Amino acid sequence: MSQGEHAAHCDFVLIGAQGDLARRKLLPSLYQLDKAGLLHADTRIIGAARRDYDHATYRNVVLDNTREFMNDDICEETWERFSNRLFFFRLDVDVQSTYDEVKAFIGESPLPSVFYFAMPPATYGNICKGLHQAGLVDGRCRVVLEKPIGKDLDSSKVINDQVAKFFDETQIYRIDHYLGKDTVLNLFALRFANAIFTNNWDHNSIDHVQITVAEEVGIEGRWGYFDTAGQMRDMVQNHLLQLLTIIAMEPPADLNADSVRNEKLKVLKALRPISHTNIDARTVRGQYTSGYLKGQAVPGYLDEDGANERSETETFVALRVDIDNWRWAGVPFYLRTGKRLPSKVSEIVIKFKKQPHNIFAHAYRSLPANKLTIRLQPNEGVELQFLNKVPGLDDPMKLQQAKLDLSFSETFVNERIADAYERLLYEAMVGNQTLFVSRPEVEQAWKWADSIIEAWQHCGVRAKPYQAGTWGPVSSVALLAKDDRTWHE
Amino acid sequence: MSQGEHAAHCDFVLIGAQGDLARRKLLPSLYQLDKAGLLHADTRIIGAARRDYDHATYRNVVLDNTREFMNDDICEETWERFSNRLFFFRLDVDVQSTYDEVKAFIGESPLPSVFYFAMPPATYGNICKGLHQAGLVDGRCRVVLEKPIGKDLDSSKVINDQVAKFFDETQIYRIDHYLGKDTVLNLFALRFANAIFTNNWDHNSIDHVQITVAEEVGIEGRWGYFDTAGQMRDMVQNHLLQLLTIIAMEPPADLNADSVRNEKLKVLKALRPISHTNIDARTVRGQYTSGYLKGQAVPGYLDEDGANERSETETFVALRVDIDNWRWAGVPFYLRTGKRLPSKVSEIVIKFKKQPHNIFAHAYRSLPANKLTIRLQPNEGVELQFLNKVPGLDDPMKLQQAKLDLSFSETFVNERIADAYERLLYEAMVGNQTLFVSRPEVEQAWKWADSIIEAWQHCGVRAKPYQAGTWGPVSSVALLAKDDRTWHE
Repeated sequence: MSQGEHAAHCDFVLIGAQGDLARRKLLPSLYQLDKAGLLHADTRIIGAARRDYDHATYRNVVLDNTREFMNDDICEETWERFSNRLFFFRLDVDVQSTYDEVKAFIGESPLPSVFYFAMPPATYGNICKGLHQAGLVDGRCRVVLEKPIGKDLDSSKVINDQVAKFFDETQIYRIDHYLGKDTVLNLFALRFANAIFTNNWDHNSIDHVQITVAEEVGIEGRWGYFDTAGQMRDMVQNHLLQLLTIIAMEPPADLNADSVRNEKLKVLKALRPISHTNIDARTVRGQYTSGYLKGQAVPGYLDEDGANERSETETFVALRVDIDNWRWAGVPFYLRTGKRLPSKVSEIVIKFKKQPHNIFAHAYRSLPANKLTIRLQPNEGVELQFLNKVPGLDDPMKLQQAKLDLSFSETFVNERIADAYERLLYEAMVGNQTLFVSRPEVEQAWKWADSIIEAWQHCGVRAKPYQAGTWGPVSSVALLAKDDRTWHE
Repeated sequence: MSQGEHAAHCDFVLIGAQGDLARRKLLPSLYQLDKAGLLHADTRIIGAARRDYDHATYRNVVLDNTREFMNDDICEETWERFSNRLFFFRLDVDVQSTYDEVKAFIGESPLPSVFYFAMPPATYGNICKGLHQAGLVDGRCRVVLEKPIGKDLDSSKVINDQVAKFFDETQIYRIDHYLGKDTVLNLFALRFANAIFTNNWDHNSIDHVQITVAEEVGIEGRWGYFDTAGQMRDMVQNHLLQLLTIIAMEPPADLNADSVRNEKLKVLKALRPISHTNIDARTVRGQYTSGYLKGQAVPGYLDEDGANERSETETFVALRVDIDNWRWAGVPFYLRTGKRLPSKVSEIVIKFKKQPHNIFAHAYRSLPANKLTIRLQPNEGVELQFLNKVPGLDDPMKLQQAKLDLSFSETFVNERIADAYERLLYEAMVGNQTLFVSRPEVEQAWKWADSIIEAWQHCGVRAKPYQAGTWGPVSSVALLAKDDRTWHE
């Protein structure tokens, strides 16, 4: 990874500058990078969208927008510097002349360009062509792509092919914003900087792994998009599989993009396929019905605005995933993610194997196994659960579960936890691909996810209803119960 | 170990009832056991000493004494119950008739007797004989012996032989009060109830172990005793070696006295001898000179009241100990203990091996190894030091040492941490030898310690001066430095 000591300079071209993502996430993140001294003095930020703003108007729009979406007061000094970097051009993705105007502005800049496509993937092809024809594409420039890239292997190939016509894979930065989270990066530190974890990170020591990404929200008005995707495409294929690869990967020889992404790809290739033969035993599909979230009545999925009342799209997925390699043979990874679950929580639980022999049986019939919990949100931190003697006289060996706890917010009180996009925008600007998803990864993940979706359809597996505000269909509990395990609570 | 659900009844005969140990520790501990409901209703406590108290006077003496030495208010209800258990007999260890009076009182009691010898070991033989001749010794009774048992292997054999004439080894409870500390018992829980530690507890994972028992006090007016003993006999041969055995022992098949003590003995037998050939490389001997402790001027050892100014007795010992067995080959145990050190602290540090490969070299040239610290006192607890990513943007992989911390006093706020003697008195009364030192252990420990003391004398190794209030002679630092290691701070 980069030295991080100096930001690299670039012309950052934000295509789709008035979209939701740009306004909520990208522009506030760029502002924060500037505040942190991580934007080079020469770096320019060029917004491009189908609007008729001049530069000055755009600066005001960004100011309002930053005020609205940032949990922080505007620092005047930063804003002064930041606003001077901002420029705006009208861009219609289908109109070549609008690309030419951007080119005229950038000219023969000594700075590499970084194009951020904050646009629907269907437009990527045209945008690439437009940039190319305007002479904006050279060997130095980079392109940052927002997910979802396609809705299955075939459609992702179409999109990736369109971009690949104009950009080499080394120039393409595919975002999965989970890879920008500090707590996800901490997985590298935990796993590879600590012998006590490195030495215990395999089937000899670990019983199973749980990855939970639970959302409180429903579909947030995104019916049109979500109903054609479902939770498998929207969350599992990208975020959950990315978390899984980071937990499961072999230690890379270094942190270069090639090394890290190759190890992640190896994990994806080793995922045992789920298909017609094992779809029932390995997957749970759910769809929320009306219920209560923290005391508030909330509608069911089929009652959402714009809903097709006969939709069979899943809003919940639980999976048992097996990884057929030397490290993980016999160690299931249980994944679950859903909408309208009781709380917003993302966490990874490493459940270690039980002790083979119990010399405390008089006090503890069955010794609970050690457990390492990595909380990605909320209350980011790391927690190791172990058994300890309870002080006291009545029994010399009365045990109790205790926690070695590291809360990020308590430990790093003076450190702001950066938004994932800040990290990723920075990495794209300095030209480090480690935290972006390679094309082979995307395709391997789709191939595996497609097989599940296809099997659901082929075998007529319908989404089981679950009440909003619960942890999904009861069969999610049964998925672990039949292996004599339970979800972490 | 015992079920701890019910205390066993007994006649507890405290011989040396007016000595320092009895007054400061044993009687307050018995009171605490009563308060905790751990003395059986029928249990009597029979003080015996060379005084002319009647029972009532003795009860008042014990009340005053308990008030003086207990950090707690007297509970009236407990005192009422406790004082009714108290009886007193004049005992002159050399006068048979005084034993006979105790026997007349106890009579043909249905309760087993537990004799606690809070007396100098030189008297043990006579006491045993007196008890025997009075008809107080039977197959049910037990005897609790206070250390030090001898000052070398030969003298310990003499004492143990004297006791063994009248009591079987299964009736003899040799105290090392370190074995009654909650934090020491917690070592069993940590090591044997937690796979994450059990699996890493050997030469594959551990680089070395440090055991520190540091005292702030000097010799506390005990010149007469201490100068003939020295720190090696007073602390290393018993307490430090006991801690070492519990850290190093193979996991016992159960917690029975035989199983546990056999594993401890195996460790003592595997200690690599230190003798003429390696005495300089493996040991450091020190003696404090005048200095300052927390700002207070304190005298040197040779300036203490009653000192022989030419004494060469050591008040500090540091050792590198090797254990020649399969588990610990190549893993040194560094021991240090001394008087007039900067703070009172007992702790065990398990330093794990470094990572074999460093993928964070750009940020951390050398990754610090994981470290498990078990604090016996003060602030009892367990702490695991590991590396964590620092939240923040400037470097995606900036690491920082963090601590997973379990403080007993914070975790078990409502639990009183019992004095070691409470635990051990209770175990003696219920007849569980696990936490007492077996004769083979005592003798093996003496054999090993004798070799060091003999080599010091033979090779003329003199105690190096160190200023009171420092961590011993600089050669203690050098002892680890030559192995490229440092003492934990």
